[in-house]
Parts: sequence; C-alpha cells; structure tokens
Amino acid sequence: MTKMYSTLPRQYYTSEQIFREETQRIFYERWLCVGRVEQIPNPGDYFVQQVGLESLIIVRTRAGEIRAHYNVCRHRGARLCSHNSQGHVRDSLQCPYHAWTYNLDGQLIGAPHMNEVPGFKKEDYPLHSAHVYTWEGFIFINLASEPQPFDDLFARLSEKFAAWNIAKLRSARRIDYQVQANWKLLVENYSECYHCPLVHPALSKLSHYMSGENDFEKGVFLGGYMELNQGSMTLDGATCATPLGDVGGEDLNRVYYYMLFPNLLLSLHPDYVMFHTLWPQSSGETHIVCEWLFDPEVMVQPDFDAAPAVEFWDMTNREDWHVCEITQAGVSSRVYTPGPAYVGQEDLIVAFDQEVLKALGHHSLN
Amino acid sequence: MTKMYSTLPRQYYTSEQIFREETQRIFYERWLCVGRVEQIPNPGDYFVQQVGLESLIIVRTRAGEIRAHYNVCRHRGARLCSHNSQGHVRDSLQCPYHAWTYNLDGQLIGAPHMNEVPGFKKEDYPLHSAHVYTWEGFIFINLASEPQPFDDLFARLSEKFAAWNIAKLRSARRIDYQVQANWKLLVENYSECYHCPLVHPALSKLSHYMSGENDFEKGVFLGGYMELNQGSMTLDGATCATPLGDVGGEDLNRVYYYMLFPNLLLSLHPDYVMFHTLWPQSSGETHIVCEWLFDPEVMVQPDFDAAPAVEFWDMTNREDWHVCEITQAGVSSRVYTPGPAYVGQEDLIVAFDQEVLKALGHHSLN
Amino acid sequence: MTKMYSTLPRQYYTSEQIFREETQRIFYERWLCVGRVEQIPNPGDYFVQQVGLESLIIVRTRAGEIRAHYNVCRHRGARLCSHNSQGHVRDSLQCPYHAWTYNLDGQLIGAPHMNEVPGFKKEDYPLHSAHVYTWEGFIFINLASEPQPFDDLFARLSEKFAAWNIAKLRSARRIDYQVQANWKLLVENYSECYHCPLVHPALSKLSHYMSGENDFEKGVFLGGYMELNQGSMTLDGATCATPLGDVGGEDLNRVYYYMLFPNLLLSLHPDYVMFHTLWPQSSGETHIVCEWLFDPEVMVQPDFDAAPAVEFWDMTNREDWHVCEITQAGVSSRVYTPGPAYVGQEDLIVAFDQEVLKALGHHSLN
Repeated sequence: MTKMYSTLPRQYYTSEQIFREETQRIFYERWLCVGRVEQIPNPGDYFVQQVGLESLIIVRTRAGEIRAHYNVCRHRGARLCSHNSQGHVRDSLQCPYHAWTYNLDGQLIGAPHMNEVPGFKKEDYPLHSAHVYTWEGFIFINLASEPQPFDDLFARLSEKFAAWNIAKLRSARRIDYQVQANWKLLVENYSECYHCPLVHPALSKLSHYMSGENDFEKGVFLGGYMELNQGSMTLDGATCATPLGDVGGEDLNRVYYYMLFPNLLLSLHPDYVMFHTLWPQSSGETHIVCEWLFDPEVMVQPDFDAAPAVEFWDMTNREDWHVCEITQAGVSSRVYTPGPAYVGQEDLIVAFDQEVLKALGHHSLN
Repeated sequence: MTKMYSTLPRQYYTSEQIFREETQRIFYERWLCVGRVEQIPNPGDYFVQQVGLESLIIVRTRAGEIRAHYNVCRHRGARLCSHNSQGHVRDSLQCPYHAWTYNLDGQLIGAPHMNEVPGFKKEDYPLHSAHVYTWEGFIFINLASEPQPFDDLFARLSEKFAAWNIAKLRSARRIDYQVQANWKLLVENYSECYHCPLVHPALSKLSHYMSGENDFEKGVFLGGYMELNQGSMTLDGATCATPLGDVGGEDLNRVYYYMLFPNLLLSLHPDYVMFHTLWPQSSGETHIVCEWLFDPEVMVQPDFDAAPAVEFWDMTNREDWHVCEITQAGVSSRVYTPGPAYVGQEDLIVAFDQEVLKALGHHSLN
Repeated sequence: MTKMYSTLPRQYYTSEQIFREETQRIFYERWLCVGRVEQIPNPGDYFVQQVGLESLIIVRTRAGEIRAHYNVCRHRGARLCSHNSQGHVRDSLQCPYHAWTYNLDGQLIGAPHMNEVPGFKKEDYPLHSAHVYTWEGFIFINLASEPQPFDDLFARLSEKFAAWNIAKLRSARRIDYQVQANWKLLVENYSECYHCPLVHPALSKLSHYMSGENDFEKGVFLGGYMELNQGSMTLDGATCATPLGDVGGEDLNRVYYYMLFPNLLLSLHPDYVMFHTLWPQSSGETHIVCEWLFDPEVMVQPDFDAAPAVEFWDMTNREDWHVCEITQAGVSSRVYTPGPAYVGQEDLIVAFDQEVLKALGHHSLN
C-alpha cells in the first residue's frame, strides 16, 4: 500500500507533558517574534512580553539598542514591570518592593543599604537577559544561552522580501485573540487552503484555493504564494493603498504566506503586510496577536483607511479560529487517529510537523 | 462484633484516578441511557451527547434506524456537529473544516481531491460508531467494542413495566441540573428514603419513608416501590392525569423507583414516568437530566398541566442535590471513614456499591 | 567570600508538592489562631473555620468550654454546618441529611433507627475533634493527635504583653483579603521594613524603617518593635483612644510586631491591637483575616471611631499584598535564585525560613 502522510498523533495536541517539552525545547530555545521596533522608538520605551511562564521586558537603551531583560528583580524576585504593560522610563528600572534599581542595560545601579552587607557587589546582580535580533523592523528574542544565529537560520530570507521594504512599514491596527486550540493546529490551518472553499467564502472569491505554489517546503521557513483575482485581500477586493515599495509585476497579483518557525506568520499583500504572532498558553489554548502594516507615508494621507483589509482578515481569522477550535475538541477523542493528508495542499503541514518533532528530539513519524 | 455494612471509602468519591477508571470501565463499557426515541422521530434528526471525554452524534438514518457516531471527522479530527447541539440534516453529515461528508450510516461519501492521493479509499474511513439499543422508547448506547447484550443484562425488565406502556409516552418537560457531587452519591441518595423525613417534608406527606419494599436487590437493576398516601407525587397530591396504560390495583397506590446501572434512574407513578440520566463530569461534579413522561393523548387535552408533577420533583430534586453536595464536601476529610449503614433502608446502596466495585475489578469491601 | 543569607528557593513558593507537605506538617500539626473567644460568647454559639482541606466547627459547650469538631457526620460524612457559617444552636448539632444528632461536646445522641442495627453503639461515633487552647482571648486549635503543649512553645509570651491586657479587648472591625501570594511571602513581608520607604509612604512618616529593635530572633515567636514619631499608626497619626491597660513609658512610642508560628501576626499599638491570621489556599494564594481590637469601655463612648486605625492599616495591608503578589509572580521564573538578604532588616525572614524548614524536616539552607 502506498505510504500516506498525516498530521501528528493526538497527544501532540492534548498532552500537557508534550506542551511543557515544547515550551522548553521550542519557545525557550528558538527565535520568537515579539513585535516591531516602532513599538519602542525612543530610549526608555519598553513593553512586557510573556513567553511560556517567563516575563520579559523589551526596552530601548540610552544607546538606542533593544534589550530583553527578565522581569525578575535579583533581590527577592519581584516583577519590575506589570504584566503585559508598556510605557516609558527615564533611565532606569526600579523594583517596586525594595527599590533595587537597574539601568536600561540591566546593570544593578542602586541597592539601598546593601553596601553594609559584607561580600555584596552590585556587579554580581545584573538583570538576567535574553538575546535580541531585529530583522526588517521585527524584534526577535531568544531565551537560549547560546542560540543559533538568526542569520544562519533565516539567511534565505534576506533578499526575498526586499521589494516590500518591510522595515519601513508601520502598524495601523493590532487585534488580540484568545483561541481554544493548540498552537500547532493554528500553524497547520495557516499552511493550507484545502479548507478555504467551505470556511472562507469571501476569501475564496478573491483567491482560488488551488492557485499558487510553495517555494520553501522544508525547514524553519515555510510557505509560498496564492494568486489574487482582484486588487488585494480586502472586503471589496480593492487595494487600500498603492503598492508597497518596489512591488510590481506578478507580485501585484499574489499574496505570499510564510511561517517563520515557531511563532511568526507573515502575509505579504501588494499594498500591506499582515503578521500573526502565536503565544501558546497550554496544550489547548493560544494567544494570537495580529497586526496590519502599511506604508507610513500612505497612512498620513487623509483618505487612507485600513478598515477594508483589517475587517476582511479579522473575519477570516475568526473563521479559522473556529475550525481550529472544533478540531482541538475532536482530536482529544480516544478514537481519533490522524487521517491521510491531501498532498499538494497539506504538504506544508507535514513539513511543519517534522520541524516540531526535530526540535523536540522526537522520532519522525512519516 | 456483628458485621456492619457501610458505603465506599473516601477515595471512591474524591479521587480523579478512580474517576478515570470509572469512565473507562463503566461509562465507556456499559449501556447508557441517552434519551428517548421521540427526540429524533424522522430520518436526519440528530442530537449530540457527551459521554466522559467523548462526543457522540445520535442520529436516525434514512432507513429509520438509530445510530451513534463519534463526533470526530476521520480526516483531521474536527467535530462534525456542535457540542450539545440537536437538529436535522437532509442526508449527510459534513465536516465544516475540509468538507469531508458522511452518510447517516457513517460511511464516507465525499472527500474533495482525495482521489488524487494514491492508496486512498473512501471505504477505509467511515465514522467510528457505538452500539445502540432501544428499550421502551429509551435510547441506550454502548461504547465498548463488544458489549454484553442489553437483553442479557436487563431481561428481568421485559414484563415488569408492561402496564405503564412506557414506549408510548412522550416527554412533557426536561430540566438540566449541574451538581457538585460524585455521581455515586446521587445514586445512593436515590436508593434510600432514610433521609426523607428531614430532607423532603413535602414528599414525606405523600409517601411514608418506611413504606414499601425492594424487589430487585442485587445486580445491575435495583429498586422497589413505596406507598402513596394520595393520588400521585405532585404539589397537591392529586394526579395530573388518568392512570397510564393498564396501571391498576395496588399500582395505583405505589411509586416504583429503579436504577438501571449505571446512569438511568426510573420512577414510575400511576399517572406519569420520571427519569434521570447521570453524566459524571469529574469526581466531584455530575450533570443530571430529568424528564417527565406522560401519555401523549392526555397531553393534547386542553386542561392538561404537567406543572404539579414537575414542580414537585424539581423541588425534591434540589433538596437531594443539596444534601449530596454537603456530603461530597464532607467525605473528602482526612478523618472521614464510612459510617454504618441502616440496613433495611440503606441496603440498596450496599448493592449498588458492590456493582461499582465489580465493574472496576476492585475487591469487595463488605 | 563572606557567607550571605537569602530567602527560600523557588520551589518553596511555587510547588504544590511542598504546599501539601506544609499543610500536613505545619497547618495540620501546629497551633493555629482561629479568632477570638468573644466570637462565641454563649453556649451554642459557633463558627466554621476551614483549615487546609478540613472544616472545623468551633463551638462553645453548655459547660462554657470551647471545642473544635470536624464538620463531618460520622454516618455518611455530610457537613453539619455550612461552609464559613456562624450562628447559634440550642443544644446540639444535627446532620441535615439523616438527622444524626450530636451534643456540643461532640457525642452522638441521636441516630434514627440505628438501634435496629446489630452491634451499633452510639458511643462509638462521636464527632472527631481537634485540640483547643485559649490565650489572651485568642482561640488556638491544633489538629495533631498529640500536639506539643501551647505553653511549652509560647511560655516566653506569658508576661510579655501583660500591660496591653489583650484578653479584655474586643474586635471593632474585621476585613478579609484574598491574596495571590504564598503565605510565607506574606510573613516575610511582615518581618521587615526595608520595603517601607517605597511601599508605605504614609507609614514611613509615622515610623522610621530603621528604628526599633528585634527581641525574639529565633524560634516560633519572632519580632520586635519600631518607634512611633506620632501618637499611633492612624491616618492622621493621632491615637484613636487612650492607652490600653497599663501601657506607658517607652511603649507609648512603640509598635510591637510579632509572628506566632505559623499563622498569627500580632501588632500592638499604644491604643489598639491588630492581628492577622493567614490561611494558605494553594502555593500561590492565601486568605487573610485582619482584625482591630480595642478596649470595650472605650468602644461604647459616643465619640469613639476606629476608622483612622482601620483605614490606615487597610491601605497599608493592600500595599503589602501588592508587592507580595508581584514577588509571587517573579519567583516562579526559571532564572530566579534568591538574592542576598539585607542583614539587619531581613534577618527575621531568615529565622522564619529556618523554622519552616525545621517543621518540614528539610535541611537548613544557610
């Protein structure tokens, strides 16, 4: 009998034990997109990002660099900044408990009375930090002690998106979603359009589910394009803006969809870029952030309106979350075994699943 | 010292481990009452029933038979029907994700593009199904692969209730309850009236707690009758209708209470039949459905009113749930050990507990 | 390198396993303050106190003694009294399920029909009880079978507080708090004022954080005093009443803060006594009761107002709960390791932590 491919076994979507392994081996070891550099344009600007059970302060230093510090005072462990907060500090982060104070580089610069404690030296207690890398205006962090360099992993990307000039874009809108589904079901859903005819009637009018081609089919960067029947992916099919940067030729009739393993979904349209970041909360729940990026020069024009793009995708997102949620509910059944995949549409899923297994150090299944 | 009987040890009411064993060995292996055939009178009518962690679609086929399919698509595992939904489909059940389609017998009849996948055959992917049996208008399902035949277990019942003509009855009212107590405490509560004087003042006026006799005292079918001082169990003690079917003689002054192991409580009054089905949610929580069945010919009469029966038992049910909930709270104490049972009133409890232990393959305790 | 002291490792604040050990070895074995004798002045008065997973009925008997009975009927285990209830019964506690009845000493005095059960003797089924001790108007209970005598442990206290005449005082106000922090973080917070300048600006105006001295620095009774700049700890710094009992001399300018291991925090002011009792709910959650005691002769005076004291400490309590909650959040981080303690201010913390480890039978850490 011919070998048929299928998705991961039940426990990969339902087991809290495997979820903990994923947290350790994937979310605490791989490069995670946490947002855009424009969120913290000035020294002292910061935001707090939860990663698994950890809380990180992403802050721009006096020197203009972006750092990611663990949100944990070195004295008694108190949070320096509130959960999910964002804001601005002048020069330092002060613990609200005993006033231990750190500069924006994370060095301990104030610890009341501790000079009276024999053996105490401030330089022994900097904030713990994670690695930071910026690419095309996206901020990536990595909690591993010695992460594989971002460029080694994503070198193939460097020229791929030059025409869109993503670094220059700015966010017009952010929507947060809480979805009752495993994060991998969400990536798998993003990776195929076999479901589009039934799930996305509006999208199916703008882009045929059998159109397009994948160009990256293996590894930590997966995706391809689909063809546009109309100007862009919007409520009425018209573009919201003139084409981005140097986008032209066949790219004017395409939407590119890519997954940067493990948590960034990047969707390039002629006139805007959409991205999702995924934040697993448990084996059955994921927090998703979706943002829409436009050319800032276009955004200041009086007739600019992002709504047709935002509302189109907000509707489409919710259609996807729903089918992911009913799949999450179903795969927990004792009788569930993964069914055969439709190769030609579902093959990126198989590639993604392999990448997950590889990261976990588990055996390949197919 | 004389041997005294008592209820089960603490862990049988509080341990999630034993609860999982019960789910596997009892609720996934025994015949469960899921409702009445009248709920799905026509081909294409269906309802969804949760059993433990499983979801089943109970549907009437084109041929008029009742089937129970697991609510899990054979492709990616999505739910075909919504949680706890009911409704009507024409000829088929279609998965809302990728449009795989099954006929009402569960056979896969549509799977877009899968004919392109070498080796794929639709006949390999029918819906998983459970066994179905109907008795006196009740639908029973069984999730075991080879269940013991219903008739072997409940043969003694066949003539017992002929006079009530239960198959002909129809539901006048359904009430759902969520109770913070182990399902066995609820069965135990149903099995004795030693608690009636204090817990049920209204019921005690209609039926003396020391009256009646048990006729099935061992096995999967337990119960007996109590004597009625008045016409029926209603708010004012009057009957809501003329006697059912051929009910006559001493049965006009009796209420029969039976437990069909594990989840059906069946209460026969002269003028109506009440039944409860029990759906354990965890070691400390149970979902209960209570319905009241009347003669459909009586129900269409202009002066028919089920309220006196429904309201009487709704009040009585809530009195019972309360004492079960305070018992659930108390048995979790370190100092709790089962006290002596009042033999003569609490002996059906001992019989039920034995049946539970037997089903679990645990040693008998008494 | 000089030895530096620090607080307990992460797992002592976050592990449910250690929390269960603490419940068993500390809260089920040590003397716990449950309130004041004045809460149940008359025979038949009672209140219900949750301790870990147990529920106790604290009741005054006909003979005027205080008893603590497990809230668990000896028949089927039902709760005799509602969760967290308080009230008055005449002579007995009756189980609401089957009417088994106990006198206030806990003896079974009624069990309907059980005389028909061969071998049954009422004297075999008294309520289970815990030990009770009263000290200075406080009620302490102990769930151990053979507890160490209260006086052996707290003998040093007998004369310490004679001047305040605490036994005579009465509660003017009770406030309950639910705090998302481990109970030990709350004790540790109470044990130092290193945090006061930043966390408690109002308190810091009334009492300098470096003032005072500890007098009990080791064992189950820890604490000392701080100096008052003004009359008392109130919103305006003025006293609410004339000095308590025989309080005079330097005590007029001091607040004494003591911890009676494990759950009582006792704060003596010139004009009132405040106490907190701590009730751990999980490794990360604690229920706290705070009460303010005044001289009953003062309380009846028309111009008496407890609000300046109550509102001052309610504000200060909430400031403390907040920093404990952000510390609870932070210590769960993988990168958290206990930082060095500021000896001179944080040394009572080290002593308390040692007492916890000793009670658990764990090795000392410092």
